[in-house]
Amino acid sequence: MDFSILRKLQIRNDKKVVLLIMDGLGGLPFAPGGKTELETAKTPVLDRLAAEGVCGLHQPIGAGITPGSGPAHLGVFGYDPIAHQVGRGVLEAIGINFDLQDGDVAARGNFCTVDEAGLITDRRAGRIATELNEKLCEKLRTIEVPGVEVFVDPVKEHRLLVVLRGEGLSGDIEDTDPQAEGKAPLEPKPLSAASEKTAGLFKRFLDQARKLLSDEHPANMMTLRGFASRPKWPGYRDVFGVRAAAIASYPMYRGVASLVGMDVVETGQEIADELATLEQLWNEYDFFFFHVKKSDSYGENGDFDSKVHVIEEVDAHLRRLLDLKPDVIVVTGDHSTPAAMKSHSWHPVPVLIWGSTVRPDTVTEFGERSCAAGALGSRIAAVDLMPIAMAHAGRIEKFGA
Amino acid sequence: MDFSILRKLQIRNDKKVVLLIMDGLGGLPFAPGGKTELETAKTPVLDRLAAEGVCGLHQPIGAGITPGSGPAHLGVFGYDPIAHQVGRGVLEAIGINFDLQDGDVAARGNFCTVDEAGLITDRRAGRIATELNEKLCEKLRTIEVPGVEVFVDPVKEHRLLVVLRGEGLSGDIEDTDPQAEGKAPLEPKPLSAASEKTAGLFKRFLDQARKLLSDEHPANMMTLRGFASRPKWPGYRDVFGVRAAAIASYPMYRGVASLVGMDVVETGQEIADELATLEQLWNEYDFFFFHVKKSDSYGENGDFDSKVHVIEEVDAHLRRLLDLKPDVIVVTGDHSTPAAMKSHSWHPVPVLIWGSTVRPDTVTEFGERSCAAGALGSRIAAVDLMPIAMAHAGRIEKFGA
Repeated sequence: MDFSILRKLQIRNDKKVVLLIMDGLGGLPFAPGGKTELETAKTPVLDRLAAEGVCGLHQPIGAGITPGSGPAHLGVFGYDPIAHQVGRGVLEAIGINFDLQDGDVAARGNFCTVDEAGLITDRRAGRIATELNEKLCEKLRTIEVPGVEVFVDPVKEHRLLVVLRGEGLSGDIEDTDPQAEGKAPLEPKPLSAASEKTAGLFKRFLDQARKLLSDEHPANMMTLRGFASRPKWPGYRDVFGVRAAAIASYPMYRGVASLVGMDVVETGQEIADELATLEQLWNEYDFFFFHVKKSDSYGENGDFDSKVHVIEEVDAHLRRLLDLKPDVIVVTGDHSTPAAMKSHSWHPVPVLIWGSTVRPDTVTEFGERSCAAGALGSRIAAVDLMPIAMAHAGRIEKFGA
Repeated sequence: MDFSILRKLQIRNDKKVVLLIMDGLGGLPFAPGGKTELETAKTPVLDRLAAEGVCGLHQPIGAGITPGSGPAHLGVFGYDPIAHQVGRGVLEAIGINFDLQDGDVAARGNFCTVDEAGLITDRRAGRIATELNEKLCEKLRTIEVPGVEVFVDPVKEHRLLVVLRGEGLSGDIEDTDPQAEGKAPLEPKPLSAASEKTAGLFKRFLDQARKLLSDEHPANMMTLRGFASRPKWPGYRDVFGVRAAAIASYPMYRGVASLVGMDVVETGQEIADELATLEQLWNEYDFFFFHVKKSDSYGENGDFDSKVHVIEEVDAHLRRLLDLKPDVIVVTGDHSTPAAMKSHSWHPVPVLIWGSTVRPDTVTEFGERSCAAGALGSRIAAVDLMPIAMAHAGRIEKFGA
């Protein structure tokens, strides 16, 4: 639903909505004929919520598309991930908890190897160790570019982050990575008049970087790509009329929540810590994004049993959430991460919506097969979930007379 | 489906299609664990049609969006309600059966109270009685504006309708209601060059209204909003190639049907009267929109049992409809009006399509939970229903070779 319509229909009240995202929740049977992680897990509380609520499977982005963590969360947050794309530089900044401010231009950097003629022989400098990356970044931090602040931060292996902060900057600049070996790194070329100055500043940075790195090996040069500024999107307060808090411990999810205007609050690493934060902030917010990371991590590791265990752990903790008497609960994942695939996947993701105005369907267990028969349908678009949750919280007015 | 494509593929034949809309049909259990109104109602005929036909739940506008009656009907009629928005003034005119002609500009008026400085102290003039409203409208009818005809009609409480009729008018004018107390009513400001003249004419009307109302209390002033002309949309004959009759007793539904080019025929207040009209006109039309209002009214009143009874009454009458041997029958609601909520809601609406080419699904009862498992799906867009009905009537040609 168009934000301009949602904004117009928005009602403010004191109803509380909790969005519980178990990262990578959707799964697959580990062996043919078996059950998925969620189907295997003993989840009495989730099953009760599923029985009382309405269930389905959501499609994060589009048919057959495997989402990255950023777009997957944006979809469940109600932001069309195709229309709300985030520059690579911004995602990189978010992922390492860099405090990217409005107007900053961030770029993802790669250390690379060039030969004597300046042509790239390895686009990733042999995937140098992160420790070496850290040392090189310290060296690069000595670079001064007149008129702007320069930030250089290591990411992992050959990847780094470069941010310029100043007035009148624009990220509309072409990548300097030629995407092929045997070619020289490109100049940062402005793609519009607004970015001419910024491209010039990045060029000055890269000229100095070339000198500083020239005696290093194999990382004797670097490229930059995904130049971008923090997007200016309408936030949750504006679109849905709620004060939203993000309870998540990993930088990436905290960052994506901040892009949609949620207050990113301090919390701990464990589910119990996150629940304590939720309890503490209960009266200060209307909407809570509650993130559980480990279901995805174990999926990525191919650790079926540990993923099952995380889901059971969440279920056991849910009574504390229910004690707060939320008006609407949404439980889902941002995408599927089947342990059998050791990666994110495109499979639709189980979802349940619980609240007093929910029209129950015939689903009595929270699992992939059971949710496929739920009244939300087996391919509801992720972006449609949040308007439904807000409707159940009495927060959306009638359209037309 | 795009109208230009439907228009191109349209086939004219003698097949008859009946669209039976039970207003506000969708419901909710009155108590947790219970049945909805439709699930409670004994509906042997509807169940038979459901078993022989194909079922589902339709989403009138979009996820989580509660539709007003106008947009909800437009959706089922096959007109995307977002792309086909009707100005408030037009809906108000339609709702009181005002014969709005092409080129008229209608506005919804509110009587309000202003203080000595002309600032609004009550935007609704204490919701004055409709009888007082009628007297004030008589007074306002004495206003003359050179070059145009002026119509003033009471609606209900503080609401009235003002229509200007003449050449070269445009409704592209800003509301004069400042939407806040402590502010003066605004001037009717033209939003385009085409509406400058019309805005001036409404200003002359309001200047005189101010004088005429100045000695009244509390309704000593008025505001206007939702300036609009009757939209010019392609009609049913053009889009679907059918001669369509609207059998509905309430002005709002008659009005919306007229906006899509249906012939709005005379009928009575009861379902039996409407059926007599249907029988009488059977040979003159290809398509019949048959409207039952009371399912919605009882839902709005929170009267679960009476809503159940209306549904049973419709079921009992259906044999008369079947005796006419229609080729295709669509039974649905325009939106849900759960008695438990005493209001319209966003919940998807049960729908069945019956005809000789329908591929039956596993649904054998017409109800919310059963339809969720139907082959039309549990969130089919309302606008998709009419092309399917026309296809079953053999009225849509092959697309491409």
